[in-house]
Order: sequence, then C-alpha cells, then structure tokens
Amino acid sequence: MPAHPADSALYRGLFGDDETARLLSDSAEIRAMLLVEGALARVQGQLGVIPADAGTFIDRASREVQIDPAGLSAATATNGVPVPALVAAFRKAMEAPDHAQYLHWGATSQDIMDTALALRLRRMMDLWAGRLDALIGSLGVLADRHADLPMAARTYGQAATPTSFGAVVAQWGRPLQRHRERLAALRADLAVSLSGAAGTLSAMEGRGPEVRAALAQALDLRDPGHSWHTDRSVMADLAGWMAAVTGTLGKMGQDLILSAQTGIAEVLVDGAGGSSTMPQKQNPVAPSVLVALARQVAALAGVMDGAMIHAQQRDGAAWFTEWLTLPALCSATGRALALAVDVAQRLRPDPAAMQQGLKAGCGTIFAEAISFALAETMDRAEAQAKVKALSQEAIRDGVDLVDLVRREVPDRDWDAILAGDRLLGAAPQEARAFAASC
Amino acid sequence: MPAHPADSALYRGLFGDDETARLLSDSAEIRAMLLVEGALARVQGQLGVIPADAGTFIDRASREVQIDPAGLSAATATNGVPVPALVAAFRKAMEAPDHAQYLHWGATSQDIMDTALALRLRRMMDLWAGRLDALIGSLGVLADRHADLPMAARTYGQAATPTSFGAVVAQWGRPLQRHRERLAALRADLAVSLSGAAGTLSAMEGRGPEVRAALAQALDLRDPGHSWHTDRSVMADLAGWMAAVTGTLGKMGQDLILSAQTGIAEVLVDGAGGSSTMPQKQNPVAPSVLVALARQVAALAGVMDGAMIHAQQRDGAAWFTEWLTLPALCSATGRALALAVDVAQRLRPDPAAMQQGLKAGCGTIFAEAISFALAETMDRAEAQAKVKALSQEAIRDGVDLVDLVRREVPDRDWDAILAGDRLLGAAPQEARAFAASC
Amino acid sequence: MPAHPADSALYRGLFGDDETARLLSDSAEIRAMLLVEGALARVQGQLGVIPADAGTFIDRASREVQIDPAGLSAATATNGVPVPALVAAFRKAMEAPDHAQYLHWGATSQDIMDTALALRLRRMMDLWAGRLDALIGSLGVLADRHADLPMAARTYGQAATPTSFGAVVAQWGRPLQRHRERLAALRADLAVSLSGAAGTLSAMEGRGPEVRAALAQALDLRDPGHSWHTDRSVMADLAGWMAAVTGTLGKMGQDLILSAQTGIAEVLVDGAGGSSTMPQKQNPVAPSVLVALARQVAALAGVMDGAMIHAQQRDGAAWFTEWLTLPALCSATGRALALAVDVAQRLRPDPAAMQQGLKAGCGTIFAEAISFALAETMDRAEAQAKVKALSQEAIRDGVDLVDLVRREVPDRDWDAILAGDRLLGAAPQEARAFAASC
Amino acid sequence: MPAHPADSALYRGLFGDDETARLLSDSAEIRAMLLVEGALARVQGQLGVIPADAGTFIDRASREVQIDPAGLSAATATNGVPVPALVAAFRKAMEAPDHAQYLHWGATSQDIMDTALALRLRRMMDLWAGRLDALIGSLGVLADRHADLPMAARTYGQAATPTSFGAVVAQWGRPLQRHRERLAALRADLAVSLSGAAGTLSAMEGRGPEVRAALAQALDLRDPGHSWHTDRSVMADLAGWMAAVTGTLGKMGQDLILSAQTGIAEVLVDGAGGSSTMPQKQNPVAPSVLVALARQVAALAGVMDGAMIHAQQRDGAAWFTEWLTLPALCSATGRALALAVDVAQRLRPDPAAMQQGLKAGCGTIFAEAISFALAETMDRAEAQAKVKALSQEAIRDGVDLVDLVRREVPDRDWDAILAGDRLLGAAPQEARAFAASC
Repeated sequence: MPAHPADSALYRGLFGDDETARLLSDSAEIRAMLLVEGALARVQGQLGVIPADAGTFIDRASREVQIDPAGLSAATATNGVPVPALVAAFRKAMEAPDHAQYLHWGATSQDIMDTALALRLRRMMDLWAGRLDALIGSLGVLADRHADLPMAARTYGQAATPTSFGAVVAQWGRPLQRHRERLAALRADLAVSLSGAAGTLSAMEGRGPEVRAALAQALDLRDPGHSWHTDRSVMADLAGWMAAVTGTLGKMGQDLILSAQTGIAEVLVDGAGGSSTMPQKQNPVAPSVLVALARQVAALAGVMDGAMIHAQQRDGAAWFTEWLTLPALCSATGRALALAVDVAQRLRPDPAAMQQGLKAGCGTIFAEAISFALAETMDRAEAQAKVKALSQEAIRDGVDLVDLVRREVPDRDWDAILAGDRLLGAAPQEARAFAASC
Repeated sequence: MPAHPADSALYRGLFGDDETARLLSDSAEIRAMLLVEGALARVQGQLGVIPADAGTFIDRASREVQIDPAGLSAATATNGVPVPALVAAFRKAMEAPDHAQYLHWGATSQDIMDTALALRLRRMMDLWAGRLDALIGSLGVLADRHADLPMAARTYGQAATPTSFGAVVAQWGRPLQRHRERLAALRADLAVSLSGAAGTLSAMEGRGPEVRAALAQALDLRDPGHSWHTDRSVMADLAGWMAAVTGTLGKMGQDLILSAQTGIAEVLVDGAGGSSTMPQKQNPVAPSVLVALARQVAALAGVMDGAMIHAQQRDGAAWFTEWLTLPALCSATGRALALAVDVAQRLRPDPAAMQQGLKAGCGTIFAEAISFALAETMDRAEAQAKVKALSQEAIRDGVDLVDLVRREVPDRDWDAILAGDRLLGAAPQEARAFAASC
Repeated sequence: MPAHPADSALYRGLFGDDETARLLSDSAEIRAMLLVEGALARVQGQLGVIPADAGTFIDRASREVQIDPAGLSAATATNGVPVPALVAAFRKAMEAPDHAQYLHWGATSQDIMDTALALRLRRMMDLWAGRLDALIGSLGVLADRHADLPMAARTYGQAATPTSFGAVVAQWGRPLQRHRERLAALRADLAVSLSGAAGTLSAMEGRGPEVRAALAQALDLRDPGHSWHTDRSVMADLAGWMAAVTGTLGKMGQDLILSAQTGIAEVLVDGAGGSSTMPQKQNPVAPSVLVALARQVAALAGVMDGAMIHAQQRDGAAWFTEWLTLPALCSATGRALALAVDVAQRLRPDPAAMQQGLKAGCGTIFAEAISFALAETMDRAEAQAKVKALSQEAIRDGVDLVDLVRREVPDRDWDAILAGDRLLGAAPQEARAFAASC
Repeated sequence: MPAHPADSALYRGLFGDDETARLLSDSAEIRAMLLVEGALARVQGQLGVIPADAGTFIDRASREVQIDPAGLSAATATNGVPVPALVAAFRKAMEAPDHAQYLHWGATSQDIMDTALALRLRRMMDLWAGRLDALIGSLGVLADRHADLPMAARTYGQAATPTSFGAVVAQWGRPLQRHRERLAALRADLAVSLSGAAGTLSAMEGRGPEVRAALAQALDLRDPGHSWHTDRSVMADLAGWMAAVTGTLGKMGQDLILSAQTGIAEVLVDGAGGSSTMPQKQNPVAPSVLVALARQVAALAGVMDGAMIHAQQRDGAAWFTEWLTLPALCSATGRALALAVDVAQRLRPDPAAMQQGLKAGCGTIFAEAISFALAETMDRAEAQAKVKALSQEAIRDGVDLVDLVRREVPDRDWDAILAGDRLLGAAPQEARAFAASC
C-alpha cells in the first residue's frame, strides 16, 4: 500500500534502492532501538545506576527478543511514538519483571529513537560513501579516457566554445568529491541522544552525563556533551547534503537527457527505455529518474529546514514532520547514488556525433576564438563586432562561419588558429587533474 | 521497506489511512489500467477501429486477468513506465494472439496511466468528500452547541477579546465548506487522456477524437476535447486543493495543541498520547499529526507546481517527479481527513478553564471594550491611552484591570458594560450561521 | 537596496513588471488602506454607528491626506503592522480631533490590511486578465497559422511522431484558458475583511455585520458573511493559481529553450541575448526567465500553503510569512505574463529546421506509423518487433528507416502511408479548435 | 516598488537589515564587478597576458569609474546578464580604446558575476559572524545568569519536568556555535571563478590557470583549481547554512511567542508591539518575525537546491533562479541575526511566572520524579501506573499531585525528593557549560 513508489512492488525497481530500504525498514528500526535500550542498560549496569545483573540481562535480551512491528502499531498511533509500546512488549517478553523494570531507565522515547536513527544513518552513510567512491572512480576513468575528446560546450543550449567530454565528466565529478568530504564530517557528527524526559536527564540522579558518555562509547557515536532533542540542525544539514548529492546527480542526469536528444545523440546510456507504442524509442529513463529524485529532494530538504522550528522541549508536530520526510530523502539519495553508479558504467560517448555537434550552428562555436585572433591585429571591440556580423550571416545563409572568415580575412592561417588542441583550452587539463585526484 | 511511514507496519496507524492506501496500492493501479485498456478496446470495437470481437474479448479479459505487480517491476525499471510490461503480460495471459494484438491500439503509456489515475483519484475524491461532509457536520454540531460558550480570543498568543468556542469552531469549518465546493469542481475536471504517442492520436487514422469521446463516456470521465499529456495543471490544482484542506486541518490542529497546553487546557482531545517516562502526559498527538501532514503537503504541493514545467511532448523527469509526489499527497490528505473526523468527535471543551482563560492577563482582555465605553464620554484616543496605562498597571501589579477601571471611573455600570453577551460580539451569530449552513 | 531583483535598478528590466510593481508599491498600499478607512467611516456614518459628519469628514480626508511611508517605518517595525501608525498620522493630519476619534472605529489592523490587499489584488487580477487574454489571443493566431506546419513531437527528448507547430502552440494555450476561467472565480472571491479585534466585531455593538455588508457594497468586494482573519485559503488558492500560470508559462519557456538549441533551432525568439565574450550568442534569455520565475513561484506557493497553519485568532508569524511571500509571487506572475505576451509576438518558427528535425534520428520518427501499417498484414506484436529491429539498424548504420522499410517491405506504397497529412493525426484539428476557442 | 518587503520604505524596519542591504545593493554589485575586472586586468598585465600598461590603466580606472545601474538596465534585460553593458559602459568611460579593449580579456560574464558575488558574500559573512558572536555571547551571559532559575520544561506543550531557564537558553545557543564553525568553513570555500566562455578558459592561450591563481591571490579568494560555473553546490550549501541559522533563530522565536502567552508570560521581550484597537496588547512581534523569516528561508533554500540541476555548461534558467532567490535569503539571514541580537538583550524572564508555570497542571510536572522515587520501593511499572492514576485524579479534581502522593505514600520525605536542585537534573550544568564555551 505505497504512499511512496519506492515502497511499491511495481515501481521499486525504478525508484527504490534495496540496500537503503533495508536500513529504513521497520525491523531495522526496531532492531536499532533495541540495541540502544540494551546498550543503555549495559552501561547503566556497569556504572551502578541500575543493578549490574539487570543491565546484563536486558542487554542480552535485547539481542534475542523478536518484536513484531505490526503489534506496536495501535499504541504507536495513540502515543505518537513507538517506544512506550516497544518497552512494554520487550518487558513482557523478558519474563523477568525484576530486571525488566530497569529497562529504559531515565531515558525518554526521543533518546531511543534519535540514537537508533543515528545508528541507522551511519550505516546508510557508509553505504553511500562506498557508492560515492565508486562513482567518483568511474567518472575519473571516463574523464581520463576522454580528456581530449572534443565536443561542443553549450550555454543556454547554444553552442559556446569547444570543450572535451573528459572536462564535462570532470564537472560532474568535482562537486561529488566535495560531497564525499562533507559526508565524513556529517558522519562524525552523528551523536548519541540521552537527555531524559525533557532534556535535563532528570531521572538519572546526577549520573546522566556519565551514562551518556558511556553510551556514546558503547555505540561508537559522538557524545555531544549536551541535549540535542530540540536542535534539529544535524538532521537539516544531512538533508542539505542529500540535496547537494542528488542535485549534482540531477545535473548529470539533465546533461545526459540533453545529450541523448534525437539529432544530438552525443552520449547515450545503454539499456534505455522502450515505449508501449513507438518501437524506435530509447528513452533516457535513468537520467530522468536522477532529475526527478533531485527535484523531490530539494523540496523535502526545505521541509527538514522548516522542522528546525521546534517548539519548547519537544515539538510533536515538528518531530513528526521529520519522520514524514527523512525516509523519502534517504530513499532518494540511496537510489540516486546506485543509479548514477550504474549509469556511469553504461555511458557511451559518440565521437562522431560530437564532431557533428561542433559543426552545428554553422561553425559559430569558433566565434570567440576567431574574435580573439582578429583582436591581435585590430581593436578587440571591432573584432567582436565583425565576428558577430559574420556569425549572423553564417546562420542566416546556412554557410560555415569559418569559410566566411577565410574569405574576409584571407591572410591568416585559420587552420592553425582553429586547430583542435588549442581550442579546447584548459579542458584536457581539467579532465586529467580530476582523474588524478580520484 | 518504507520510504514513507504510511507504508510502515509500525507507523501506518499514526500516519496512514487504509482506505486511501487501498486506492494507491499496486493492485488498484493495475486494476485501473486494465479497466482502461478494456474500455478502450471495447469502444474501439464498437466504433470499428478494431474488430468488434477483439474489443469484446479484450474487455472481458481485462476484468478477469490477474497480473502480479512484482512481475512487472524489472521492465518498469527499464522502461520507466509499467505499461509496456503490463500490455505484454496481458497479451500473453489472453492466449489469443489474434485478439491480443488489438490491445492498447493507438494508445500510449501515458494515456493509460493518466486515465487510470483519474479513475483512482475520483474514488479518492468520493472518499474524501464523505469525510469532509462528516467533518463539517460534526463541526456544525459543535459550533451550534457552543455558540455562546465564552472563551478568550488570542492574537499573537495574547488575550485579545472574548469570543465563543462555537465561533472558533466555525472558523475551522468555514474554509472546509469552500474546499468541499472546490472538490466538486475538481472532480468534474477529471478527464480521460487519449492522445496517442505524442499528443496527436496519430495511430487512430482520424478516428481518435471519436474514440476519446466514447472512452470518456464509457468511463464516465470528462472528454477534454484535446490532449492534456503536457498540461499538468489539473494535477497541480489538485495538489493545491490538498494543501488547502490539510492546511485548514493543520490550523485546527495547531489551535488544539495550543488549547491543550498545561495551564490553559481549554479544549482537550480524548485519547491523547502517553510518554515512555512521564506518567502524567496527555500529549496532543492527533493535532500534532495534523500539523505535520500540513507541513509536508505544503512542500509537496510546490513540487507538483514545479512539475508543470513539463518539456516538449512528454518529459520523463517532470512526470516521474509527479509520481514521486502525488501518492504522499493523497496519503496525507486521506489521513488528515480521517483523523480530523475522529478528532472532531473527541473534542472536549472545558468551560471552567475557558473562564480561567478570560481572567488570565489580569482582565486586560476587556481593554478594548473598556476603551470604547470610555470613548462615549471622552476622546477615543485619550480613552485608548488611559486604558493602555491602566492595563500596564494591572499587569505590573497583578491586579485586575476591571477593578482598576472601577476605581478610576466609578460612575459607569461596568457590570452591564462588560456583561458576557455583549462582549461576544458577533461570535454567537457566526457560530450559529455556520451551523445552519452545514 | 534590493532583497528582490525586481526591486533593483539593474535587474528590474529583466525580472520586474512596472505595472504590477505600481500596485505593490508602498504608496499604493497606503492609498488602499486610506481608501478602506475612508469607506468604513462613510458607511458607519451613514448607518449611524459614528456621527454622520465624522464619517463624511474622514472619508473626504482619506482621499486628500498624504502620508509618507518612511514616516511609518519605525512604528511599523515595533507594532508589526503599519496601521496603528497610519491611523495616528491620519488622525493628526486631519487636525480635527472631534472627527478623528471616529476613524478606524471598531476595526482592527488586519481588517484594513486584508481589505486593502483585496482591492490591490483585484487591480492586479484585472491587469493580468488583460495579459492572459492578449496572450491567449496571440497563441490562437499562431496555432491557426501553423496548424499544418509539421515538426517533430519529442518525448523524453527523443523524436516521437510528427506533430504540427500549431498543435504545440495549442498545448501551451489550453491550460491558459483554464487559468483564465479560474481567475474570474478567484476575483469574485475577493472579500472585504471586517471582523474587529479578534474576529467577533466586538466593538460595533451588534451593528458589525451590517457595517461589513455596507462596506463590501461600497468597495464592490464580496461580503463573506463571516470573518476570514484566520482563513488564509483564499490567499493560498491565489498563490496556487499564480503557480499554475507561471508553471504553464515555464513549460512554454522550457520548450522554447529546447527549440532554440544549436542544431535544432526550430523556433527562435527575436531579440535574444548576447554574451560578453562570444559574439555569436543568441541566448534564449526571455524563455529562461519564464522558467526561473516558475521555479521560484512553485516554492513560494508552498510557503503560502504553509501559512494557512495560522494559530488561534491571529498568528503574527504566519501572517508575516504571507507578507514576505505574496509580493514576490505577484511580481513574478506579472512579469511572466508580460514577458510571455512579448515572447509570443516575437516567435519565429523555421519550417526548414522543422523538416530537418523530422529527418533527425534516421527517420525513426515514422516508426509508430510504419508499425501500424505493417500490422495491417501481420500480427501487431511482430510488426512492432520488426520495426524496432529496423530502427536500431537505421540508427546504428546511419541510414534512413524508411529506406530500410522500403527494402524490406517493397510491396507497400510507403509514400502514401507516410504522407504528411496523415501522420499529423489530430494535430491540425487540435490547433484549429484551440484557435477557434480563443 | 517592492517585490520584497525588505525593499519597502514602510516595512524595511520590520523585515530589512540595512547593513546586509548595502551589500546587496546595485551599487555594491557594480562596485564588486568593477573590482574584479580591475584585478583581472592587473594580474593579466603582470603576467603579460595583456599589455602591462593596459592592466594598470584598467585597474586604476576600475576604482574611479562611476556607472549608473539604471543605465545598464535595458541591456541587462536583453542579455540576461549585466556584464556586456557594464563592460561597454566601462570601456566608453575609460576614453582610452587602446587599453579598453583589454578589459574583460578571456573572461565571461559568469566569471565576473560569481567572483563579485563571492566578494560580497564574504563581507556579508563577516558581518553575520560578528552578529553570531554577539548573540552567542549574550546567550552565554543569560545562560550563566539563569542557570538555576527553575521553569517548566514543556513537551507537546505539556508540562514535562522542571528545567532551568539557563538550560533553555543554552539549547538556543548550542546550535549557533555549530553554525558559527560551519560559517568559517563556508567562508574559506568562497572561490574565484575564472573559466572563460564555457569553462575551458579557451581565450587565455594556455595561461588561464595561472591567471586564475593570480586573481585568487589578488582578491584573497580561494583558487578552486577548476571551473565551478556549473557546480552550484557552494551556493546551495550556503543557502542550507542560512536555513540552519534562521531555523535555529526561528525556534528561539517560537519559544518566545509561547513564553509570552497571556496566562504564561514567563519570558517577555521588552518593546513588544501594540494594536490599533486593543490598548493592552504587547504582541511578540520580533519573535514572530524570526519565525516568519525561518519559514521563508526554508523554502528558498529548497529553490537553491533545485537550481543545482544546472544544464550543460551554463543554464540561464537555473542561474536566474539563483538570482531570484539568493538576495532574499541573505536579507532574511541578516535581519534574523540582527533581530536576534537585539531580542537577546531585551529578554526579561519572570521567576514568579515560572514558579506559576511549575504549578500549573496540578503539580503533575513532578510525576516522573515521583515515579522514580516510588520505584525505589516497588516495581517501576507499577510505580508508573500508580503515578499515572494519581495524575489523572489530580487533574480531574483540580488538586495537587504532590498532595495526593503525600496522602497515598506518607512515609517518604517528599519535600526532599522534590527539592528544586535535584529536579533540575543536568540543566544547571548544561547552562553553565554552554556559558563557559561562549
């Protein structure tokens, strides 16, 4: 019953990512919450906050107990949080009331849920980091291989100057390197949450900070040193990072859609999509999905930003807003990364089509180079004006600008001036520098 | 594996709506698409566009065939649309190649999907219309019953003037009446889509418009008279309507959260949520969910608006963006309505607490009334200044403004001036007028 | 000091619309607020709520008084609303304290501001309605003129089937007709706001509803019959309408950007933009602005939707959120409409380039038509498979699909089958029907 | 003619920030662009890319020339970018064609605009950094001063447990420290843009990277080592940071609105706003503005995220989308910070009201503490159930929970158990630790 197509049997393959989905699943969430409850009891037992044997018992039980998510649904609907029902079910399953009463000692639902979320996010981040590395690696290989492959650079959809396909790939890859670095920082930011009912650890009799530090160590999460119940900026930052990643991949997708256009067809993605009625269609489905995911994520990141307006010591509405939003963000990020890794391996640049692309527009792609060459012997503004006039003539009459220039300024060696190597400018170097940095 | 908590076994009760979910399900989508394919073949058979017996056969088969969504997933991932695989599976299942080839004659995937969507949306609208009617009815009863129940009106969270609880309820209900009317218009807007590969019905040999009209009649949808493949404004309008509905319910939720605050507690919602550590808590969970859904929907409606920028004759990225967004919008709308219907029946206003609320702020809630009374015998600006000074004195010293006024202006009958009936202004009438209009 | 480029001397020409800006200006706002205060006093005088001569005096003074916006700024910053300072300045300027005290009698700031806004929005709507009419008219002329001009329909950026330029234009125009109708409904929805301090008209001694009705009549606005202080759905609906309009124009802009691409150049917009370094550039600046405005408006409409969560009887934060958002929405809508009217008159379709576009992709644009032709003599699934194989061969070898088909199936009259008229399907009719409906 | 109220004479004081506005002004933009052109010519002259005396001349002239923004408006509207007109006006003003032709040598509009933007953003960041420091400092003083001042912590608007006002302040301040650190990183990220027509520095004859490095040094910006024309993630990250800052301040604003409510009034902000009709009103205007700015920024940050989908080598629509969005983001951030600095100095906590707040809800705020105390001598689940029952009784009967507990469990020293110090938990430490870290 999908409210999101990644949860649909029909659309999961298009929009979903199985590995991310596993970490978003109900069972993963329950498992992570139990892990937190277990670790909390263990460290509380070790610190003497609760009886040591209760801590040991609860910890062990937390690994073994099986709790059915559906069984918690009704109480979750009432309480707004699954923890009261989870704690009750776990207590009951322990069949050891003496120990069971020490479960969830001094913690509040949000402590358990936010800490469990941090654990799951860390695993997602590791998954995504691997994909980012793979993607950057693939793009590095492509950039290197095609560092000198000339193609038209296009601005506003108009032929601008020549570039190389390797440089274009490097432009896709550079921001990903930045996102990869930021991911490491965000991962290190993931912190344990343990602040009790309303941020003061009131029920831990002064031992709260100590317990929090021990719990952080036990779970290998950061000890924030204070409460972050109401500071949702880590979640918002993460959402912003997801927007940056999917936005970068959306840009790659948009470029690939444009590259694949009939009549341009400079870069194709193998395995394109067919139509129900048009036998010829090779639709750029995967690039389109990248764009769509980026559009969705951009808006959802804004929702997470808004959820920072979190009233007082816990704001149910703001917190629920996060819950409604974060899973879709994670799903989209996971899918976009998996798809981009896949797409990067299926890219097929077509040098002949790229040559064709350089010629489209009646050679006016060389206009800037011609104007600078002319500026060597005349005022530059005049040179620009002259080339502008010739460009208009070329397009109007459907003749090649370079031919017009040869006719008008016959005494220059236009072949040398417009030789490919020179016109690519820094493109090959940018491509190779990116490849070398991967 | 939920990317949306409404798809989660754990959170479905909190955020999901079973009836809306059924209409969003994979099986409902496949069933609706088959229904469209069947009806298309039937009318094409009747019009002689395809052999009559093929039309009859396909139509009948469309009602009987069982197609597993998961079986279409891989091809959907490749093609971006489920229809090619659906058509192939249906053809195969028919075991009648002579007829099967006439399935999906001249249509394109988008025709089938958009028309099937219209059918499902119509059923959702009917479901929601019923809920809106029920909700408006409940609010009408409340408004009538409490038309004269005085409580503090609050602006910027500050006591403003007295109002009545019935008037407050009427304020919740009035916009819903407007949304109810608009829903009828949007429902009537739902149209059949039949435009073929790229909007021109090219494969129907000039019979296209005729087939479309017949299909519209068969499915009881509007015949738009032209293609709406690329005109996504009906979908965007619907999203805007969902934002209006959930925004209105979010306002009600926000009011209820504020009304339930400790120290105010003027309106409670029975069956509030408990905490995992605080035994006293009666958290306004349902109102908080209403607010969260509204926040989510507001952003998602913006995504639907952006998806109107739909390039050329079909824009995969823009269309996919809709798919990623519309189900969550429908799910949230369904849930918000169901929850609001439920909440409206669980509202419990507390007249004593409301009396207390009128007294909070040292009686300054009567400041406007006093100033107008004074203005009968002195310049109004002076009256306002005098009351302002007295109000500040009242708050500073913790004494009642009315007592101060009695002391300062002893010669007026303040009891009569500040009698409840008069101070409520038009509140009771507004409440009763709303109730009468339900 | 522009926080919005439409307010910038540098960018106003690109993003601003002078006529809309005039209605958004400080002086227009003050003028409208004074008009409301004047009308209110007049009708209150006529109804005997205030002395008749005070009403007459205030009304006349409201037309004559000059109030400098900057002079109200400091008090506006303190009070959050300009009305207290406006009323004070107006009272002072009147130099008639006996009358002045009856100014703003029983009204609250929101009454004045919302009613004044309704007045200004009505004028904007009239302005925009005229532009919509002009735009629809221009598109109608274009659609009619080019109803039979063949060009490639493109889905996912891939050649799909032939269509006509007129049909493409009709696709731009159809949703605008819908928006035009909706505008009339929204205009009729504009209502007077008169509910007093907190929605109850408490200070009008039971005459409130009567005064509101008279004020509505005086200003020719709708009398809502109740308070809409907290019902912001009319504003949200209007924002949604602006998103629909700009989204539709953004789609047109996106199509024009794609049409203008070097190597395609099927539709140009005269007066395109130049580059600071590339003499040849004819950048589709105006279409790009249309897309950018649509993207901005889509997000801002979501903000207006969120502002419907308006707490209690007046929510400063929610109301301020509207103020921060609505002007940019209006500015963008005005600009998009003005620009689209202009662009529609500067469109230059290039039939030769369109012919070239039909040939791009090795004639595979005829694949659907060929498959249906073949299906007359063989099973359709087989026909589709055959054409798919031939299409792949055509693209791979760079030969024309139609030539391959002639070779493979020599016994059919392919010239007749693929004759232009037939392949355009319903495109010419759709174009002409749209033109006829303008 | 304001499309944004920060540009309005009337509303500037409410929503605008003069210092940020100055950096956003047309003249600041032109000045920054001229500075970049001047520095570019200087370093190109030094490197021999252009004649040395031309470089010197242009550089000097760039500091002296006066260019009127309005004079560039028409050409900006045509070209989409102001640079062609700026360069032409500057060339003309130089009255030295021999030198003038070397102006803007090898650069493109985007190089100049993005670099000039980096310069202006750096100045804004410095401005904002100072405000953040001041704000954190003020909050630190408040946290320290009120570290032990007890007040009710509220979750879902319900009394939860006691906390201290200092701890509440620390919760506002902690995320700001995080944002302050991130700001330093974002500032260091600001880079020169110099990539020529289409990202390849094609017109600098192989000297491009060298020129870029020198320009970066001259302007004290980072040399990115490659083009970032199409990598908009730095701008999106900055937008995300602005959302984080305003979101954090929005949370503070929301808390202050709730704290100021009539009947609670625990923290007031001096200088609150008045009403046009209600003499008593002390509206929390400034806190409401903080919330409204945060709501606006959250949505606009999403627009910046979406603008990362930047097609090919320059995407006019995506770039314009940034221009329409970034100024409002900067304006809001500047205003929110200035306002928060101001508000922090006007905060007035009311200990007596806070005591009242602890008593509201019939003492049930002590329920958790009581339940843990009881759990010392009975099973904890039983203890919780018992306290839950007593809490319900207390609220139902309007008696104090602590009195009920004394009656039910007379043998415990409830005064000691519920002594203030103990109940505050870690709140005082959190407050002091924050203060110490400021």
